This record gives sequence, structure tokens and C-alpha cells, in this order.
Amino acid sequence: MTAAALSAGPLAEADLDVVELTRRVCDLESVSGDEAALADAIEAAVRSWGLDVMRDGDAVVARTVLDRPERVVLAGHLDTVPLADPPNLPVRREEHPQDGDVLVGRGTCDMKGGVAVQLVLARELGQAVAAGRGPSRDVTFVFYDNEEVEAARNGLGRLARNHPDLLRGDFAILLEPSSAVVEGGCNGTLRVEVVTSGRAAHSARAWRGHNAIHDAAEVLDRLRDHVPREVEVEGLVFREGLNAVKVEGGIAGNVIPDRCVVTVNYRFAPSADVAAAEAYVREVFAGLEVHLTDAAAGALPGLDRPAAADFVARTGTEPLPKYGWTDVARFSELGVPAVNYGPGDNATAHADDERCRVEELHRCLAVLSEWLLADGPARGGDR
Amino acid sequence: MTAAALSAGPLAEADLDVVELTRRVCDLESVSGDEAALADAIEAAVRSWGLDVMRDGDAVVARTVLDRPERVVLAGHLDTVPLADPPNLPVRREEHPQDGDVLVGRGTCDMKGGVAVQLVLARELGQAVAAGRGPSRDVTFVFYDNEEVEAARNGLGRLARNHPDLLRGDFAILLEPSSAVVEGGCNGTLRVEVVTSGRAAHSARAWRGHNAIHDAAEVLDRLRDHVPREVEVEGLVFREGLNAVKVEGGIAGNVIPDRCVVTVNYRFAPSADVAAAEAYVREVFAGLEVHLTDAAAGALPGLDRPAAADFVARTGTEPLPKYGWTDVARFSELGVPAVNYGPGDNATAHADDERCRVEELHRCLAVLSEWLLADGPARGGDR
Repeated sequence: MTAAALSAGPLAEADLDVVELTRRVCDLESVSGDEAALADAIEAAVRSWGLDVMRDGDAVVARTVLDRPERVVLAGHLDTVPLADPPNLPVRREEHPQDGDVLVGRGTCDMKGGVAVQLVLARELGQAVAAGRGPSRDVTFVFYDNEEVEAARNGLGRLARNHPDLLRGDFAILLEPSSAVVEGGCNGTLRVEVVTSGRAAHSARAWRGHNAIHDAAEVLDRLRDHVPREVEVEGLVFREGLNAVKVEGGIAGNVIPDRCVVTVNYRFAPSADVAAAEAYVREVFAGLEVHLTDAAAGALPGLDRPAAADFVARTGTEPLPKYGWTDVARFSELGVPAVNYGPGDNATAHADDERCRVEELHRCLAVLSEWLLADGPARGGDR
Repeated sequence: MTAAALSAGPLAEADLDVVELTRRVCDLESVSGDEAALADAIEAAVRSWGLDVMRDGDAVVARTVLDRPERVVLAGHLDTVPLADPPNLPVRREEHPQDGDVLVGRGTCDMKGGVAVQLVLARELGQAVAAGRGPSRDVTFVFYDNEEVEAARNGLGRLARNHPDLLRGDFAILLEPSSAVVEGGCNGTLRVEVVTSGRAAHSARAWRGHNAIHDAAEVLDRLRDHVPREVEVEGLVFREGLNAVKVEGGIAGNVIPDRCVVTVNYRFAPSADVAAAEAYVREVFAGLEVHLTDAAAGALPGLDRPAAADFVARTGTEPLPKYGWTDVARFSELGVPAVNYGPGDNATAHADDERCRVEELHRCLAVLSEWLLADGPARGGDR
């Protein structure tokens, strides 16, 4: 290891492959709110590779600035949910009965595998620019903090407020685990409280009161009988969902309850805005007391944009709809079409046996590297 | 005030009427667990009147021991629910728009009015015995602590465990507020948890889980559609009740809940024992997961016993069923038929404007005094 590489930190060495980089990124523990050490290491590495770097809190933005006609943004979050007890670090490489050759440990899937892919790409781009073989598109790498916690702390949201210019681009890829398949757009989400009201009384003389929990039967009946819609948007079929996520009522073991609150989460296709989604929920619960508590619009897939279509063709896979709300919606709000595309099966995220297939690390990297570093048009692309 | 009366405390003076005694008992604050000062004052007073006295914790038992063929037990609790803030002491006497001449303040209704009636009777009995005009029945007065809190702390329950002999009698009257009408027996009460189980999943992909709250629709449907029974027992019609008193489910705002628990309170007529009542509830929720959490049998009115029939006739009122579970059930368990009969409208108990009609204080005292101190048979009685 050279002195220069040493001063550039543990992620900067030129011979680290994506598997070893995933290990190292994972082994720099970074539970939400505690991403500073990892952000420092990433900042040092991308600076050493000659990229234009900006730091905001524990978010790092690294860019090529080549005045290319098109800019692509690659983004990933640095934080993980807390480690299981006992800690499952360091990351292990092992043979999994179903998944074969995998890295196992907190963050391997969600989403330090994706961060490692970003880092290799940043290094390769830095080397290409230094060698005068600059890419055909400018690229922005965004590494951000606090994705796994409440929205107000989200580092990508903070960047969008403080430096919206740094997130601009023609197309964005969020390297969230998607099993190396393009997942387009995302469903919106909103929550309402459906409230029933009664009159308290001693339960020994129930006829003097009115039982609000019994009235909630009507709320649960409608939820149970509701058939979620499937909505086609830009060729992708988004499955919706309308679900009670909480129910709460009751004063004491001998009192007729005067209030019951059912909290309902509606996941709605990105073709509807929040107002339309709220209207739909109010229609389902017509005649009942409904309060909107929070809402976030979904994101349209935007797969008809040239850069997006080109990229999808490059992956050689059929895009799927993304059901969960993700930070692609923040790009969508900035007018940047965005998709999820990254290594790892989301089903193992946050799990005790969180893992990522090594093959997916290599494949994601290869697809992105070929797309970003090749000069010619994509195979099958029609730009 | 004589020196002897002073040493016997604030409740012992021979010229205190039932209204003034109610005031004084109320003004000795005694929220559950803090009854010692009031118990001390009562113990000193009943000792000064020459009764046989036993103290157990903050319960006081005072008796005549005249070897009469029949013994009557009069019982009342000393504690109140906490005072409102600011404290509504001292008690006020005022003209109420509906109720006329009333005492207003914490404890006036539940049940220091009844305790004051007990005290005047104890004093009169002591005087009668001293004067060689002993009553035709022996009388036991029970003043006990912690009725307003969890059953395990109940002073009458503790006496029943430590000194069951002291509670024996042919008939017991609990001076709980009953608007000066005999309320016979009491309903039993049990609680069950009706549990629905599902499978947790992210609410963005609800189809991978199973919503336990939606399944609880079936539980609430059955409760809503249930028609409570009315059961005639010894000529009294007991209204039953089957009510959700709590519902709880939900993990997080984005998770399909895997468990929902509806707590149901069943108030059942005293003709059924706990096993029969539990079987009835299990029938209502057939096919669902049901757990019994607590149960207490009711109490049969026992109005056909001679002492009971005699007393009821003496009151000149038609007895009513008691719906709420009360400590009469503890006497019932000891084989002592018991009724509720005391001053105060139970509807104002625990309320900020808790109050007791002065006329009811005088009437309850007159009825009991005439019954216990007269030598001849009761009017209309058939002993």
C-alpha cells in the first residue's frame, strides 16, 4: 500500500474489487446517525480519485464536471438499521443453500453492496478522466445518511433542500437492493385515521353508553371486503394496498369505550397524486370520520426518457414496478426520472441473515460500468 | 366537648347527627391506601361507645356480642377515588337544582354518607346496650379499606381471608349508594381476550402477509350484532352485557399487523356461575381464539331469607337488581346473603359534582335504626 493510498483511507486502494469493497464498507459500522466515519472514508477516497467533491453533514456528493450533454445520478444511502446482538460483523463470505456464493452481514444487502458498486464506478471514472478517456455522460455520485429513520432526517431530502442543483440530472439510479432488476417508479403512501365515537359508561350498565369499538366493526368490514386495485402505469402494473396498520380503543376494563381509532395505510399507484388518493380513501370510508395524517406521492417510472430507456435496454431485464415508497420519489419531485437498480434481494434487508449474492455485485457493476464508460450507444438503445 | 369525647376523636361526640358526621368523615381525606387517619378516628369512636372492636390493617370491625339468635352485618368502605384538582374539600351543603338539599364533595355519595349512617347506628346500639335495651339481633359493623382499587388490595377480601368468622351473619347490608332502594345480588363479570393472528409483512407488499386487524372484523361484527340477555333471578330481572372494552393491534405504520386482541367484558346474571358464563362467551366467539383473563361470580339476591325479607319490607320499597359487581359477592361467597342499600345516587359517584341528598341520609338511618333497635317484628314482615 502506498503512502498516498494510506492517506486516502481504507476505501481508496486501486486494486480493491467490488466484493472486498463491500466488506470494507460493511465493516465500517454506520447505524443511522453514526455515518461520519464511513462518510469520511468515502470523501477521502473520491477526492483521491480526482472527482469534484462536496460534503454536507454526512452526505458526500462526487461528480465529474465534463460539460457533457447528459448527466446521470447514482445514489445510495450509507446507514443501516442497528446491528443484531451479538454484532454480526465482520462480514462473512459463505455458500448459502439457496443463494450460493454470498456475503452475509448487516448492510450487505441494504445497501452497502450498492455503495461499493458506486465506489468502483467512481474510481474507474476518475481513472478514465485522468487518462483522457472521459465518459459520454457526466456522472454524479450521491452517498447520503439517515435513510432508515424518520423522513425529516433523510440526508437526500436535506441535499434536495440545501443543494438541489447538485442532484440535477437527466436520469437517476438509486442502488437500493432490487435483485439487479430495474424497478421503476414507486407507489405513493398515505395514512388516515378512521375514528368512531361513542359515549363512555360503566360496563355493568352498558346501555347507558355507546360502544365506539363495536362501531369500528363497520371500518374493519370495509377493509376486509376491499379488493385492492392494480393500476397500469407506463406499462408497469402497480399493485395497491389498503390496510389497517393499527387499531386502538378502550379506557379501562370496566368502561364502555367512547373512541376507537383505526389507522389505515393506503399504498397507491404513482398515476394518482395525494389529493386523488385521499379522495379514494374518503370514498371507501364514506360516512365515517376520516383524518389524513401523512402522505407522500409516488414516482412515475419515467422509463420513456432516453437515458432511462437506454439503461433498461443495457440491463437486459424486464423492468418491474416498485411497490414500496423509496427515495426515487425525491428525485421525481425534482423532475428527475429515477429507478431502483442494485444488488441484493430486498427480502433479506434488515433480517438477521441479511445477505447479498456475489454474482449480483459483479453483474450490477458490469452493467453500469459498460453503460457509463463505453463511448458508443447501448445495445438495443434508440437514442 | 368533654375530655372523654376529645380522646375518642372527632367522630365520637354523642350529639353529632348523620349530616354532620358525613361532613366530618368526608373531611378526613382517605384516598385508597391512605385510610389510616379515618380508620383511627372510627376505631376510637366505636371503642368509646362500648362495642367489641377488632382492627386489621385499616379495617375496623365493631360488634355487639349479645348471643342473639340472628346477626346482621353492615359494611362500608372508607376509601374514595382521588380528589379532583383543586381539592373539593371541605364538603359543602347546598341547594341543588334537581336534587334539592345536598352535601357536595368527594365521598359524600361513594360512600361516606353510608359510613356516617353506620356510625350513628353503632353509637345508638352502644347506648341501647349500655342502657339495658339491647337489640333483638346482634350487629356487626365493618369499615374497610381499598375498595376503589384492584381486588387484591380490597380490605373486605383481606378480612374474609384473615377473619372469616368476623364476617359471619344471617344477612349483610352493604351501604353502597343505591338511592336508598334495596339492590339485590349483583351480576358476575368476566373478561376474555379474543385474538386474531396473521402474518407480518411490509405494508407496501401486503399480499405477502395476512392482516390480523382485518380478521378482527369478525369479532366486532359478532359483538355489534349480539343482543344482551335479560335473566330473571328470584323475581329480579338482571340485564347482561357483552362489550369490547379494549382493542389493540399494530406494529408500525408500514407493517401488516400479525396480531389483534379484543378484550371483551361479559356481565352475567348471578344465576350462572363462572364456568357457565365462560361457556356462553366461547359459544358467541365459536371458531375464534379466546383466552379467559379474569372472572368473578355474581351474587344471588337471597331475598327469600327471613332477615332479608324482613328488611326489604321495612324499607317500603321494591327491590331492584344490582348490575355492577360489588362486594356483596364476597359475602355471598361466605354464604351470607347480602344486598346493597345506602344513601346517594350511584350516578354521581366519582364525578366532580359528587353529592348526596340529605333526605336519603336521614331516611336510610331511620329505616335501619327502626329495624335494628325496635324489639317487635317489622311492619309487613312474616318472620
